[in-house]
Amino acid sequence: MQENYQQKTLGILGGGQLGRMVIQSAISYNIDIHILDPDANAPCKSICQAFTQGSLTDFETVYNFGKNCDVLTIEIENVNTEALEKLAQEGKEVYPQPHIIKLIQDKRTQKAFYKEQGIPTADFILTENKEEVFAQKDFLPAVNKLGKEGYDGRGVQLLRTEDELEKAFDAPGLLEKLIDFDQEIAVIVSKNNKGDLKAFPAVACAFHPTANLVEFLFAPAGISESLEKRAQEIALEVIQKLDMVGILAVEMFVTKQGEILVNEIAPRPHNSGHHTIEANITSQFEQHLRSVMGMPLGDCSLRTPAAMVNLLGEDGFNGDAYVEGLDEAMKEKGVYIHMYGKKITKPFRKMGHATILDENVDRLKERALRIKSLIKIKA
Amino acid sequence: MQENYQQKTLGILGGGQLGRMVIQSAISYNIDIHILDPDANAPCKSICQAFTQGSLTDFETVYNFGKNCDVLTIEIENVNTEALEKLAQEGKEVYPQPHIIKLIQDKRTQKAFYKEQGIPTADFILTENKEEVFAQKDFLPAVNKLGKEGYDGRGVQLLRTEDELEKAFDAPGLLEKLIDFDQEIAVIVSKNNKGDLKAFPAVACAFHPTANLVEFLFAPAGISESLEKRAQEIALEVIQKLDMVGILAVEMFVTKQGEILVNEIAPRPHNSGHHTIEANITSQFEQHLRSVMGMPLGDCSLRTPAAMVNLLGEDGFNGDAYVEGLDEAMKEKGVYIHMYGKKITKPFRKMGHATILDENVDRLKERALRIKSLIKIKA
Repeated sequence: MQENYQQKTLGILGGGQLGRMVIQSAISYNIDIHILDPDANAPCKSICQAFTQGSLTDFETVYNFGKNCDVLTIEIENVNTEALEKLAQEGKEVYPQPHIIKLIQDKRTQKAFYKEQGIPTADFILTENKEEVFAQKDFLPAVNKLGKEGYDGRGVQLLRTEDELEKAFDAPGLLEKLIDFDQEIAVIVSKNNKGDLKAFPAVACAFHPTANLVEFLFAPAGISESLEKRAQEIALEVIQKLDMVGILAVEMFVTKQGEILVNEIAPRPHNSGHHTIEANITSQFEQHLRSVMGMPLGDCSLRTPAAMVNLLGEDGFNGDAYVEGLDEAMKEKGVYIHMYGKKITKPFRKMGHATILDENVDRLKERALRIKSLIKIKA
Repeated sequence: MQENYQQKTLGILGGGQLGRMVIQSAISYNIDIHILDPDANAPCKSICQAFTQGSLTDFETVYNFGKNCDVLTIEIENVNTEALEKLAQEGKEVYPQPHIIKLIQDKRTQKAFYKEQGIPTADFILTENKEEVFAQKDFLPAVNKLGKEGYDGRGVQLLRTEDELEKAFDAPGLLEKLIDFDQEIAVIVSKNNKGDLKAFPAVACAFHPTANLVEFLFAPAGISESLEKRAQEIALEVIQKLDMVGILAVEMFVTKQGEILVNEIAPRPHNSGHHTIEANITSQFEQHLRSVMGMPLGDCSLRTPAAMVNLLGEDGFNGDAYVEGLDEAMKEKGVYIHMYGKKITKPFRKMGHATILDENVDRLKERALRIKSLIKIKA
């Protein structure tokens, strides 16, 4: 049987670090990658086979870009799904399927989906505007989320008390009951168009207190076997009920009562899977590629315990980036640096990540903290 | 301390699969890669930041190419060293140093170096032409090697008996006593310009009976601890006595008497190190990058036992390549495919490789044989 992956062109909507790491995998399969991104200096630009600078949300731009590709996928949710829908109708393979991207783009339809499908998630109330949020003071403390266009922590805010209500987003959104969780975890799952289904082991996420981004990540997650099993079950349930082809990151809360609730999902490679490049048999980026290109999915086992640290631009620095502490970090056994090809740094901008492998799980936390304090990105 | 690797350009002479795999590592460090190669469709072409099509052996071409780079290295030995010498004098960092590339390019000066430095190697006689080989019939059986421009098995032939003498190369070369070896192994070592010195664990090489290329490779090598230690010692001795910066593959024989003799060396990433991408803490490609860019060298430990299989073009097929059996291979846990971006296949052309990881060393040989019989590259 002849598999001609190298004769198919994969178009990726979005040319950021996620696409960059997919390209690092795609190179091994001779798969030509076309990239669409509004930034002329997008991380993928100099390593893809064709780069188009253009808007990801414009119908014509996305449609014309897609016509030159055989398979299309995304590395960011905020894309024009109508153009993708048309391309799919015209015979292009679009994964994830456009209607699923659309459902996920809006946190309101996302939450409604969980509710309809009986997928455990925090209680919520849909709100159309600021006034409707004001009316829900009895629902506090709650997380106020914008329906559309939030990412990397934006469009999400905590409203603890009545006097914070005035911060409410004045646009369609939702209020979600604040969960007094024990920890936050994530499971990345994947499905191809041949029915293969795989789940990565759960990871434990520690979030930056103010920037609302993943700061540290640990694999294994350090949860019980039954919680691990339940988390994977739920994540697999989500991708199956969506009937989605591609890769899906499912962020979950583990409540103090030992319940698992779905927080959010992302139908693309995700920050919670960066460690998989070195730590797992198959990386999430390779798995993304395999799932959309119709290749068999890869084994997801963890090879070595790992911690991942996001390398964010230092607060107070804007401009041409330079890195301090890299040599020191690189001397350590099992430390892996991934810089994202971004020339300009800004406070808290995701400029790269570092993964630490260590057979001794107890050393990981300390090593992660040290690497984080060691590497600084300034301008 | 500020490390600005991302502000340095690395120029690689040669744009084949070795450079391609270096680029896969370089992407993680934001290092811009410039490539020089005579082939307009060189494997590196579409993924580097600047590609120059041109001769690697022409002085002007190499010199002009090098002027636009900060650091220069090679992924093939047959390059113009005079141009590199001039670039080095003008302040470019050239690694390996040009005089070392020149010494290694000629198998005669290579062998003379081992002899002078007391590095164990098979006895040899330098020969200027065919006639001088004919005069050495008492030295048979011997391996007849061309002094310059042999690679991937060319320019090397076995002369067992007198009547084979007429095949002798009619050019400066050498006759090397045929070693009745127990096995062939290789150790890859590395040095940077800060004095860091590292050795990868030894690997066992099994050669293709007629094509004289590596067919299989196994790590660990399955040799005794003392042989492992001796092999690494010798390899480190070679790079230190050369005072070379960069990465050096040292191919060795283990004789039936348990002696280790150096066969050949290559001052660049090597077929015997391809498995290191998934099997070791640091890959040889990453190590090459680190050594020439002045970064600290990485740990070389083996994470998981591995076998590597070269994926060669099937005999009898010439033309646009397609691959059979890829899906079947990709379903297996721990199988990693690396295709080299070559559109055209020819008999025995190195089109890719497959690495198999398995905690159970005894299963590796069988799995390697199966993967090899499974994947076919035809036209």
